[in-house]
Amino acid sequence: MTSDSAKQRMKLFTLNSNQPLAEKIAREAGVPLGKATVNRFSDGEIQVNIDESIRGAEVYVIQSISEPVNDMLMELMIMVDALRRASASQINVVIPYYGYSRQDRKARSREPITAKLIADLLEMDKITRVVTIDLHAAQIQGFFDVPVDHLVAAPLLASYFTDHQITDNLVVVSPDHAGVSRARTMAELLGTPIAIIDNRNVESSESLDEIPTEIIGDVKGKTCIVVDDMIDTGTRITISATALKNAGATKVYGCATHAIFSKNAPEILQNSQLEKVVVTDSIRIDKEKQFDKLVQMSVGPLVGNAIKMIHNNEPLEPLFRSSIKN
Amino acid sequence: MTSDSAKQRMKLFTLNSNQPLAEKIAREAGVPLGKATVNRFSDGEIQVNIDESIRGAEVYVIQSISEPVNDMLMELMIMVDALRRASASQINVVIPYYGYSRQDRKARSREPITAKLIADLLEMDKITRVVTIDLHAAQIQGFFDVPVDHLVAAPLLASYFTDHQITDNLVVVSPDHAGVSRARTMAELLGTPIAIIDNRNVESSESLDEIPTEIIGDVKGKTCIVVDDMIDTGTRITISATALKNAGATKVYGCATHAIFSKNAPEILQNSQLEKVVVTDSIRIDKEKQFDKLVQMSVGPLVGNAIKMIHNNEPLEPLFRSSIKN
Amino acid sequence: MTSDSAKQRMKLFTLNSNQPLAEKIAREAGVPLGKATVNRFSDGEIQVNIDESIRGAEVYVIQSISEPVNDMLMELMIMVDALRRASASQINVVIPYYGYSRQDRKARSREPITAKLIADLLEMDKITRVVTIDLHAAQIQGFFDVPVDHLVAAPLLASYFTDHQITDNLVVVSPDHAGVSRARTMAELLGTPIAIIDNRNVESSESLDEIPTEIIGDVKGKTCIVVDDMIDTGTRITISATALKNAGATKVYGCATHAIFSKNAPEILQNSQLEKVVVTDSIRIDKEKQFDKLVQMSVGPLVGNAIKMIHNNEPLEPLFRSSIKN
Amino acid sequence: MTSDSAKQRMKLFTLNSNQPLAEKIAREAGVPLGKATVNRFSDGEIQVNIDESIRGAEVYVIQSISEPVNDMLMELMIMVDALRRASASQINVVIPYYGYSRQDRKARSREPITAKLIADLLEMDKITRVVTIDLHAAQIQGFFDVPVDHLVAAPLLASYFTDHQITDNLVVVSPDHAGVSRARTMAELLGTPIAIIDNRNVESSESLDEIPTEIIGDVKGKTCIVVDDMIDTGTRITISATALKNAGATKVYGCATHAIFSKNAPEILQNSQLEKVVVTDSIRIDKEKQFDKLVQMSVGPLVGNAIKMIHNNEPLEPLFRSSIKN
Amino acid sequence: MTSDSAKQRMKLFTLNSNQPLAEKIAREAGVPLGKATVNRFSDGEIQVNIDESIRGAEVYVIQSISEPVNDMLMELMIMVDALRRASASQINVVIPYYGYSRQDRKARSREPITAKLIADLLEMDKITRVVTIDLHAAQIQGFFDVPVDHLVAAPLLASYFTDHQITDNLVVVSPDHAGVSRARTMAELLGTPIAIIDNRNVESSESLDEIPTEIIGDVKGKTCIVVDDMIDTGTRITISATALKNAGATKVYGCATHAIFSKNAPEILQNSQLEKVVVTDSIRIDKEKQFDKLVQMSVGPLVGNAIKMIHNNEPLEPLFRSSIKN
Amino acid sequence: MTSDSAKQRMKLFTLNSNQPLAEKIAREAGVPLGKATVNRFSDGEIQVNIDESIRGAEVYVIQSISEPVNDMLMELMIMVDALRRASASQINVVIPYYGYSRQDRKARSREPITAKLIADLLEMDKITRVVTIDLHAAQIQGFFDVPVDHLVAAPLLASYFTDHQITDNLVVVSPDHAGVSRARTMAELLGTPIAIIDNRNVESSESLDEIPTEIIGDVKGKTCIVVDDMIDTGTRITISATALKNAGATKVYGCATHAIFSKNAPEILQNSQLEKVVVTDSIRIDKEKQFDKLVQMSVGPLVGNAIKMIHNNEPLEPLFRSSIKN
Repeated sequence: MTSDSAKQRMKLFTLNSNQPLAEKIAREAGVPLGKATVNRFSDGEIQVNIDESIRGAEVYVIQSISEPVNDMLMELMIMVDALRRASASQINVVIPYYGYSRQDRKARSREPITAKLIADLLEMDKITRVVTIDLHAAQIQGFFDVPVDHLVAAPLLASYFTDHQITDNLVVVSPDHAGVSRARTMAELLGTPIAIIDNRNVESSESLDEIPTEIIGDVKGKTCIVVDDMIDTGTRITISATALKNAGATKVYGCATHAIFSKNAPEILQNSQLEKVVVTDSIRIDKEKQFDKLVQMSVGPLVGNAIKMIHNNEPLEPLFRSSIKN
Repeated sequence: MTSDSAKQRMKLFTLNSNQPLAEKIAREAGVPLGKATVNRFSDGEIQVNIDESIRGAEVYVIQSISEPVNDMLMELMIMVDALRRASASQINVVIPYYGYSRQDRKARSREPITAKLIADLLEMDKITRVVTIDLHAAQIQGFFDVPVDHLVAAPLLASYFTDHQITDNLVVVSPDHAGVSRARTMAELLGTPIAIIDNRNVESSESLDEIPTEIIGDVKGKTCIVVDDMIDTGTRITISATALKNAGATKVYGCATHAIFSKNAPEILQNSQLEKVVVTDSIRIDKEKQFDKLVQMSVGPLVGNAIKMIHNNEPLEPLFRSSIKN
Repeated sequence: MTSDSAKQRMKLFTLNSNQPLAEKIAREAGVPLGKATVNRFSDGEIQVNIDESIRGAEVYVIQSISEPVNDMLMELMIMVDALRRASASQINVVIPYYGYSRQDRKARSREPITAKLIADLLEMDKITRVVTIDLHAAQIQGFFDVPVDHLVAAPLLASYFTDHQITDNLVVVSPDHAGVSRARTMAELLGTPIAIIDNRNVESSESLDEIPTEIIGDVKGKTCIVVDDMIDTGTRITISATALKNAGATKVYGCATHAIFSKNAPEILQNSQLEKVVVTDSIRIDKEKQFDKLVQMSVGPLVGNAIKMIHNNEPLEPLFRSSIKN
Repeated sequence: MTSDSAKQRMKLFTLNSNQPLAEKIAREAGVPLGKATVNRFSDGEIQVNIDESIRGAEVYVIQSISEPVNDMLMELMIMVDALRRASASQINVVIPYYGYSRQDRKARSREPITAKLIADLLEMDKITRVVTIDLHAAQIQGFFDVPVDHLVAAPLLASYFTDHQITDNLVVVSPDHAGVSRARTMAELLGTPIAIIDNRNVESSESLDEIPTEIIGDVKGKTCIVVDDMIDTGTRITISATALKNAGATKVYGCATHAIFSKNAPEILQNSQLEKVVVTDSIRIDKEKQFDKLVQMSVGPLVGNAIKMIHNNEPLEPLFRSSIKN
Repeated sequence: MTSDSAKQRMKLFTLNSNQPLAEKIAREAGVPLGKATVNRFSDGEIQVNIDESIRGAEVYVIQSISEPVNDMLMELMIMVDALRRASASQINVVIPYYGYSRQDRKARSREPITAKLIADLLEMDKITRVVTIDLHAAQIQGFFDVPVDHLVAAPLLASYFTDHQITDNLVVVSPDHAGVSRARTMAELLGTPIAIIDNRNVESSESLDEIPTEIIGDVKGKTCIVVDDMIDTGTRITISATALKNAGATKVYGCATHAIFSKNAPEILQNSQLEKVVVTDSIRIDKEKQFDKLVQMSVGPLVGNAIKMIHNNEPLEPLFRSSIKN
Repeated sequence: MTSDSAKQRMKLFTLNSNQPLAEKIAREAGVPLGKATVNRFSDGEIQVNIDESIRGAEVYVIQSISEPVNDMLMELMIMVDALRRASASQINVVIPYYGYSRQDRKARSREPITAKLIADLLEMDKITRVVTIDLHAAQIQGFFDVPVDHLVAAPLLASYFTDHQITDNLVVVSPDHAGVSRARTMAELLGTPIAIIDNRNVESSESLDEIPTEIIGDVKGKTCIVVDDMIDTGTRITISATALKNAGATKVYGCATHAIFSKNAPEILQNSQLEKVVVTDSIRIDKEKQFDKLVQMSVGPLVGNAIKMIHNNEPLEPLFRSSIKN
């Protein structure tokens, strides 16, 4: 930041979900992480300590709503409450991974729309803005009335393949019919056709033994990149890889923005027919969840830059442009 | 309704967008349409006259947000204002076609999310509930905090094909990659495979001369049903038909819930390679917009039934069940 | 703008209702009109394109809610939604003519209060401020919780008569009993007595053949200026002129802030007994609606100055003072 | 009320401003006044005691916002808070005289709009409905989003003159140009012409020595009824009477809905040239404020009937109709 | 419930925090628990399934915000969202233990007020009412705008001592100066004097080795009942017992409404100088947390009765009265 | 504006409750009091006149909600309304004494929570922040969602005793069990033990003849300082003094932040066994309410400093620190 001291001070804080990413963001934004800790009382209640004045400051709080999701969400809401009561002038909430985003509509009777509930909770808490990456559905932006700066990781993920010369005879594959638009975007970045696995169990967690047999589009003899927005149990992308190999694909790569890796996902993925599993660090992946085939690309520079530009009132468009083309 | 006269009276009103459908709904619900008129002053301002008392009544107002969209929307909002100030106990808004629903996310910088704006306007106006059909994105339900009863027309549309024995050698086709889930649902109702036209210009209105050439999936020698949620200018479904014929399809049917038919859509559709264009009456189609290939199925019974069940506090699930299977 | 770069940037946008006035305002305010266009999709939905960054800017949007009123209102609300989501720091809405302002109370059972509805819609959309001119009732200011800067055009209109030496033997006439206060204000500016036409059909559109016969006050042998806040069909001011002539007035001028001119108002007014019809450009009057007796005074300098002073946190009082005396 | 016991119980409470009127209302509505007292602690804080259960009840609270206005307003708001927290199902606020109603717009820079503030306070407190009489401006209805049942006292006041055969050679007079519409309404009820006193000091409290000299309309040799919505210090109506007598009126009556009677109004009025001062009991007039020329008409039956009809979900129109004709 | 079938149906649901208590409540209320389950997805997100229609029903949801507090709170909020969207007519939230209640004010700079945050979250989610027991501070009732029915467990706890003839030579002891009012209430129920342990570390978790030495009031040779609202780690009540014994008390009982029992509380309490630890079942105490000295009194009848009376619109006062006297 | 032009201007206004304190605050803050007057119309309605522009200014309004409480509260709310409509950029409300604070919870059925009502009224009026001193319960901070800067007067009051060498053989006494924490705080500042008067009539105003006899803790032969947050009728502190003297205390001092002094409190206090009554000027004490034993300490420097630091975005912690130690 410049010597322009009349300007609002910027403060950057992280909570507990993803300290390593927060440090990368802080480095890129050129602002140190503020002094604050979030602990648990012995009965599990969250305790927030903000150890420096933030009166009048433009605050950015970094927190992924990742496992344990409810704790991470409550940390965020309590922190925002504390910041507001301590007279922050702006509270910008940076949520690299927006949990509960798959609960974004009523698919059956009497279902909640939890992704909207969370938006409502945060707006009620009087946040200024949300910065996030690759929402499960772009419509979730509309769940908010405050500005949402929605970053995209596709160019970052695509760069892995171009940087490693994985560019010949490629086809981008959607693991089900709900994700075709996402595959289409990646295909445009890489200049390839697309194919779709006609998997009818979009929402449910499938068995590793139910290999889909219907593949729409041409994959025989090709290198496939299966693209999804998140990898949860790992089952879907694993059976997709098997299905593609069964259909004659030569190599299959997996690729997703958010690496949830619940249950034994690391083991399943390592044992799958995938060559590599390329993901970002929007969710922290602990040592014991890492595996040989895993490739992590950091969204730190992307988010850090965005924060810098938002603070300086510069348009984020160049960021999107640079990120939409490859 | 029972003899239980202590119960809240139900009142049904229609505004100007779709009088014929409103009459069908009223017939099914077993309640006459209330006396109200909505006119224009000479300077174009809307004038609402409610000619019977609605104090304490449970009111249902029927209005599609169809062309002229802004007038129809304002009619609805002004009517709701009048009903609220006149002490209606409930204001249930029945919107067979929810206009502006394609503006449901920021696709580019500095875009509005008009579908959310409309939800906010209606909620601000203090409605009790929304009843609607086939939202462009199911996530729009989450734009509301009041209950949304989201009806689906797919079984109704599917029944046209089963009733006319158009069941052999079928494939359901999505006209672009954004609509694959919709095609998937129809395909399940009809028990067919799906195909996808790899049309990259999803949002824009395309030229009739740019026939897509990439079709993912097998259509050769098959009868195709191109499924969309709405037909606007008619260009996309027309070029889809041409593309499918070029790829060897024997017959192509078009099918959509909402018949916007803007500009010269009727002419284009009539002159297309489509056999029939099967739509509902969620939007009123004036005489001069009707054409030989057009088939209209009425959603009147579906909506009328829903209103009856809502009023009686019965679950709508049976309605969905009967509507999801065929 | 000055070198004071720490200050918020000011941005001025216009929508479609009154481009010529917007240009005059911009000239006076010393700020160019921002790049934005508002179009219609083929089905009538409004499409907003803001073609420059407004992140952190203090934005002023100029739009009269004039015919087609519903479209102009929706343009404004959608633009505000887009500006808010694009992180404008302030959204000041400049509404030279506030349509629907005559629907400002329930005159009969079950009427809406549309002027309040519109205020609620704009507040819901999170505007910062309203700047407007000569509201139909001053109480409409109270429909808003945000600041309303309410400008008055009376001094501007009065200046026509003083500039043209129409000052002798004058009487200011209210065309009905509801507008007497307005006549009183103009009479004070011109230093004249007042008279009132005892027209009992205040709200309804009257026939050109029903000439009021009761005139309260002295008009015989005088030059009359009939003052109203708006001229809609032109009937009321036309029959007022006839009535005044019948009662012995020598000359009659018409005068109003807002020139709605619906139906064949221009023809009626041109054929009336009025000498001149003096109005402002708060509503754009297209070429084909102009006529020989029409005199247009521009509110551009008034509004442009107000914007400049608001932006500089200067009190608008001098503006009112200069405008209330003549 | 009927034997329909499943219906919500109705409860009627009064606060301290106008106990006698509340008793009349209760008698007409056929419901006893509920047990509640509102006292002051020794430091002036208000203490509310509701001495019977109101859980689930449809409550009506009667309170004029009359002198001491701030105490009466706070009594009302605190009572509403208590009722809401005690689980009333509806809180209908009956405000015969809505104080602060003259502060309904910004007449000068940096003025509050207190009439709107009070509406906002009551809405914030979550009232269900307002029932009131003769608001200073009808637009105040629009300050509320909840239903406002706006009763009119003109027919009641007019009945005094018809009942006492004061019907010949009448003219209804507005004491200033702001009240002409009110005079017009009374004139229609009594079938008379109107006149206007051209008093330029509409808002300020004038001196008894500044007798207006300009009267618009014909009053010579006539019986005049000066009509206003409220009589505060009594100065305006007193100097109006003098002015009318000076202009040749034979007799002058005063007439208003709300009898504020501040300062030495009773004395001034008794000593004026008025024959009688006809008002309602919307504000309680203590013994020591009564005087010989005073005539009080009770709005008890009007309000009591309205409450009964509202509770039974009957339209209030007949009430208005009966009240608008004479 | 009566045969009054026009009345709203009542539905009772429980979430996961305290199934045994919910069953007792249901038994007392005479309504079966509704069919609903709340599970976790593999990534920890909460999944709500409501397996019966609740359209139009008056719903009561039972959930203590006890360990794991954030999960239990999110279960509740998601359930409420689902109920609202499924058209429940009322959503009554029954929270036997209101977690985070100790964070009810800013004790130091930049602290959150989490107890208020939770109230705001629930109100935002549009609940109808809260039913709860022994809030940490009675002021938390004011954190809500909806009605709060605040039940008290003191009479239930007191009954243990009267039922077991522990009534002679008693003194009720507050373990610190913040809880004196609570001790005072219990002392009145049991007709005893009070004493206070002058422990200066009110909020922090103290060490078992720091035995307070200052005791205000007379305890020598007496049977002491140490009263608190909750027992968390058990340290405070344990060192209180030691301090009292050191000061000559003959026997010491512990007593509290909410048994949090975090960390090794059961072990500490069992090994303390306390005779018995008397608590309620507002929080479920798992088998492995139970110990010999533990006495559990069920609040099931109290809560079940309250729900029945609320549903029947009966005043809860008798419940309080019976509960306040002994 | 000065050369510090980028910064927001600060403006300080006072209303009618405590002009002398406002002047002390202004002197400390180094900002003159703005020109504004608040009068009464003859009917008791409040009239606000702000006589200088505050457009864009950061405004602080000083007003204690002291007798006459309802008038003082309405003055504040109307002023805030005027400031908001006049485009103040911030409205900071400084309330040295927050009236109605004892009504902070429902102690009995159907009571209001007026302290919350007032918070809601002020938040509804869109204030930016509250600055106050020694709230009756710290939880009242949570009644607000805006930041509350809660100052404490204990160090100021303690300094009286240290400055006058009243330091030997001291005991701080709570006049009832509800105020023990307050006594504890003062005892820590003065390094003394505490005692408690076991007065069971905490809330009610007691008789001067009912001298409590139970004193918990050691007071014999000691100098006692009875500490309360406010002195209302003076009865409680007077009977406390008698009780302490009866129990052998050598001298008794009274001490409280807020001097309400209702009814004949000054007389009672002067005639009591108290040596001195040490209070602050948070409430203005008129000449005729002053008495020999009264000692007033000004909170002007404390509040003035706080405003200065808030305006400069400096943490208030040092203020608290300096104020918490002695």
